[in-house]
Amino acid sequence: MKKGVIRPGHVQLRVMNMNDALAHYRDLLGLIETDRDDQGRVYLKGWTEVDQFSVVLREADEPGMDFMAFKVLDEATLDKLHQDLLAYGVVVEDIPAGELKGCGRRLRFVAPTGHHFELFATKAQPGRYGIGNHNPEAWPRDLQGMKAQRFDHCLLYGDDLDGTYKLFHEVLGFDLCEQVLTPDGERVAQFLTVSMKSHDVAFIKHAEKNKFHHASFFLETWEDVLRAGDLISMTNTSIDIGPTRHGITHGQTIYFFDPSGNRNEVFCGGDAFYPDHPPITWDADKLGKAIFYHDRQLNERFLTVLT
Amino acid sequence: MKKGVIRPGHVQLRVMNMNDALAHYRDLLGLIETDRDDQGRVYLKGWTEVDQFSVVLREADEPGMDFMAFKVLDEATLDKLHQDLLAYGVVVEDIPAGELKGCGRRLRFVAPTGHHFELFATKAQPGRYGIGNHNPEAWPRDLQGMKAQRFDHCLLYGDDLDGTYKLFHEVLGFDLCEQVLTPDGERVAQFLTVSMKSHDVAFIKHAEKNKFHHASFFLETWEDVLRAGDLISMTNTSIDIGPTRHGITHGQTIYFFDPSGNRNEVFCGGDAFYPDHPPITWDADKLGKAIFYHDRQLNERFLTVLT
Amino acid sequence: MKKGVIRPGHVQLRVMNMNDALAHYRDLLGLIETDRDDQGRVYLKGWTEVDQFSVVLREADEPGMDFMAFKVLDEATLDKLHQDLLAYGVVVEDIPAGELKGCGRRLRFVAPTGHHFELFATKAQPGRYGIGNHNPEAWPRDLQGMKAQRFDHCLLYGDDLDGTYKLFHEVLGFDLCEQVLTPDGERVAQFLTVSMKSHDVAFIKHAEKNKFHHASFFLETWEDVLRAGDLISMTNTSIDIGPTRHGITHGQTIYFFDPSGNRNEVFCGGDAFYPDHPPITWDADKLGKAIFYHDRQLNERFLTVLT
Amino acid sequence: MKKGVIRPGHVQLRVMNMNDALAHYRDLLGLIETDRDDQGRVYLKGWTEVDQFSVVLREADEPGMDFMAFKVLDEATLDKLHQDLLAYGVVVEDIPAGELKGCGRRLRFVAPTGHHFELFATKAQPGRYGIGNHNPEAWPRDLQGMKAQRFDHCLLYGDDLDGTYKLFHEVLGFDLCEQVLTPDGERVAQFLTVSMKSHDVAFIKHAEKNKFHHASFFLETWEDVLRAGDLISMTNTSIDIGPTRHGITHGQTIYFFDPSGNRNEVFCGGDAFYPDHPPITWDADKLGKAIFYHDRQLNERFLTVLT
Repeated sequence: MKKGVIRPGHVQLRVMNMNDALAHYRDLLGLIETDRDDQGRVYLKGWTEVDQFSVVLREADEPGMDFMAFKVLDEATLDKLHQDLLAYGVVVEDIPAGELKGCGRRLRFVAPTGHHFELFATKAQPGRYGIGNHNPEAWPRDLQGMKAQRFDHCLLYGDDLDGTYKLFHEVLGFDLCEQVLTPDGERVAQFLTVSMKSHDVAFIKHAEKNKFHHASFFLETWEDVLRAGDLISMTNTSIDIGPTRHGITHGQTIYFFDPSGNRNEVFCGGDAFYPDHPPITWDADKLGKAIFYHDRQLNERFLTVLT
Repeated sequence: MKKGVIRPGHVQLRVMNMNDALAHYRDLLGLIETDRDDQGRVYLKGWTEVDQFSVVLREADEPGMDFMAFKVLDEATLDKLHQDLLAYGVVVEDIPAGELKGCGRRLRFVAPTGHHFELFATKAQPGRYGIGNHNPEAWPRDLQGMKAQRFDHCLLYGDDLDGTYKLFHEVLGFDLCEQVLTPDGERVAQFLTVSMKSHDVAFIKHAEKNKFHHASFFLETWEDVLRAGDLISMTNTSIDIGPTRHGITHGQTIYFFDPSGNRNEVFCGGDAFYPDHPPITWDADKLGKAIFYHDRQLNERFLTVLT
Repeated sequence: MKKGVIRPGHVQLRVMNMNDALAHYRDLLGLIETDRDDQGRVYLKGWTEVDQFSVVLREADEPGMDFMAFKVLDEATLDKLHQDLLAYGVVVEDIPAGELKGCGRRLRFVAPTGHHFELFATKAQPGRYGIGNHNPEAWPRDLQGMKAQRFDHCLLYGDDLDGTYKLFHEVLGFDLCEQVLTPDGERVAQFLTVSMKSHDVAFIKHAEKNKFHHASFFLETWEDVLRAGDLISMTNTSIDIGPTRHGITHGQTIYFFDPSGNRNEVFCGGDAFYPDHPPITWDADKLGKAIFYHDRQLNERFLTVLT
Repeated sequence: MKKGVIRPGHVQLRVMNMNDALAHYRDLLGLIETDRDDQGRVYLKGWTEVDQFSVVLREADEPGMDFMAFKVLDEATLDKLHQDLLAYGVVVEDIPAGELKGCGRRLRFVAPTGHHFELFATKAQPGRYGIGNHNPEAWPRDLQGMKAQRFDHCLLYGDDLDGTYKLFHEVLGFDLCEQVLTPDGERVAQFLTVSMKSHDVAFIKHAEKNKFHHASFFLETWEDVLRAGDLISMTNTSIDIGPTRHGITHGQTIYFFDPSGNRNEVFCGGDAFYPDHPPITWDADKLGKAIFYHDRQLNERFLTVLT
């Protein structure tokens, strides 16, 4: 949190049928539905998250990510970052408070990889679902499905990794936690963080701008990852790969698709990061092991199916 | 244990290089080396097993299984089963005590699927490795690798499943715990047990006789399965598939190969069986889900790579 | 299963308020309510059990156990055991089929420790709750509370341990899996089994006959034991001790009380037993470690609170 | 990390016999011994920690904590915090680089609770033990005992909680994650953090200044907590309480004592914190549940045995 950016705040995803999407994100992943708006968007969050929402679903003709937002410390920090973005040469769009229900004003900009990002400082904060802040029990008894704890990060595909890293590092205070380098030193994957997590957002090199690989949700244990896999099978949900472990971050994971074809991950674990840590480097010829630690090879689908 | 057959007692596997095999079965799987004989065979066991050995490795020009043996209650039971096998029309070979060091006389016969099986009643019984039978600690502190607890079962491929089931059921007292049936009622997979385990030996229909699919070893937890996968990667061991769950038995599993190409499984969990349970039936068109519950499809390798 | 006794079949417990008892056994432990009878008794089972019920609750003025029953292989076995009990000098009471709904005739007798036991061969068998026997999913999605998998065993306190062991061993085919011996060789605890489980019923030496220590229910994992402890706290249920590990059996456990004061255990793990295993012996001066492996001392409550 | 303080950097503990202490911290907890100095002090770290050491053991006549240190972002931050401490009226002692081998200059001060704290910016950084920063494996294969991952936090007892909170909050940028309040609003326990962890240091109200309750080390999973308990028993180590869960932080834990009587904790889990979270409040009459979530009562030892 070198510049006051504290965490991923929300992601807005396009889904092609809202009822199917809710069966997926709410009933299967176990996100808590917290609100809807007059545009028909549905707001959800993981049960441990204190803010009002972290996932917004919007019905659209094609899948993909509209934008991903980061929460900053306070409105003064937001003002400062606004100035810093402008000074860096970034075009910043002001989104007024209330455009997302319960959320304050947002600053939107396009990263060099073509993805839309937002910053905001204020959001309604009802506290952890079902347990609150006063003598809180360990967990609520009425959780559903995978019991996803939080929206954790996105992995995005795009072309200008260096430009995006420079912007995120210099202006927003992200650190490079892990990277994949080609023999001639080109960075083809970068995992960026503003926290102890090994990634708050990650990018993989890709010819096309603004592609979405997956939104990831945090589970508590490896046993939860197993049960997520079981639920994927029970619900005939399309699986990508897993359960397995990543080499990068060493998290334990399973990938699957929502009914619109957007890829999701649920995972647990992952190495701790601090801002004095040098980046961890994977050689590009170890990419298979870096991504899927057990299989040590990529499946074609993981590299090419994007929304 | 309807006829006094109590458990899988040992399996003898052919390996092409003993040193490589020991690096695999002893250092990676964590079996305990307990003896060697003047034929150069090496004897091992899982640490929870009370008998002297459960795995025998024999150096040979090609991989595969020489034989799998079941322990019976006592010598009187062995005599009775000898008579029953002869009465059933099975040719029985007497192997004298001591042919395997520490093991009493064995009765060997060939099942209709072409596999060599043995029965024996007596084996040296040094007790659980490292903890013994007197005020035993929870586990020994010097276990290696995957810390395999026991040799659990084999899966074998062969042609005459009905004949083998009939012999194992009628003469040896095995029950059919789970089966896969084609639409016209042909049994193409059968999981047989003499215990609470969902399989002590299993067979899959295959044109050729006497093929070996895998020897399986029991781990304590799903976390151990994860760490087994990690060790497979760290040691550059050839993986087949996993971690995942089976539909059949619902055990949690990972498959890989020894340096000679023999397939191994380590797994945990699995449903409990009692002899009053009707068999569980899987439809052949659900075979993918029956074998790999999460992926719901078989990989070609799993069906065709045999030794 | 040397004599055809296959497993604990049911236990009938006295509870002082049925509604409170159901909130406990059904909603908290997660047993499935399967039936009620015109005496007001309520029938439940763990979701993995194939028979119609394994727990019967009877409203009464004081808590405790009415009887514990074992299932045998078939009616012929029941007849044989009837003769054997009579020949051994045991008084056997015939309970007609239907006295417990869905259960065939039962043979009831009193063990030398004063406890009432039953044998039966026939019970309605609807199969595993929610998943059945045809292409079964890994688990049903609507389980409650601790998701208890099965009624596993009882621990009973009484005086004549030797007499009860002799009866259970010689007539019913139970083996002594673990025991606690005083320096002069008196057996003060005995864990008896007819299966791979380290105990199907256990006895601890006590001056008074026919006392009930606990009924135990099986959970799948150590994580389930943690969540059981969480639920005990959330529901203000009276805890005895745990989570912890036993020295005897090495199972992982937590103890608590039902609203009537009957002690329950939920546990996972436990060593595997086979009938060729010599008994494991604990010295009486290690009783603390034998019972509570981590604390290595008993709490007074565990030894003295009985129903 | 509002002021550039990033994490607990090290703790120096007094032990009465170094060999016994090493058998405990190195062989039982599994910390890695990294260095010794000419004062006879021994340096250790958890295997995931990138810095040279996080625990320093000093042989002395009585147990307890000499000091606890926090690492800051860089030397410029250290200078700034030096000025801020002085401006706040704190007496700051300069400890020259090299007084602890491999560590840069430290700023030492006494908090209102009487405890000695240090800040430093520079320490030799050999990277994670056994896996490094280049294509790192998931974990090293030669870890010992409990495989402690990192020194995580200390819990300290002292009188002036308000004064210490004010100093840590205003000058060092710590947030109040959880607190215990009496009915008249007095804070009797405070859990402070500069990270996503629910505590980097915690204080409990106590009449005497400068008392040490425990140093805590992070494990990966609840299964590791179980195995820690097993190892405590196997090594006849004095246990305090556990395995259990905390209400505060919801971490899963076990407490025990080093051979000198210093209390240790190993734990896993724990809620995530962000600096926009309001503090979680426990009522003092729920202190038992707040500390030991399952038992819901404190043991006398936990409150009174301090070093």
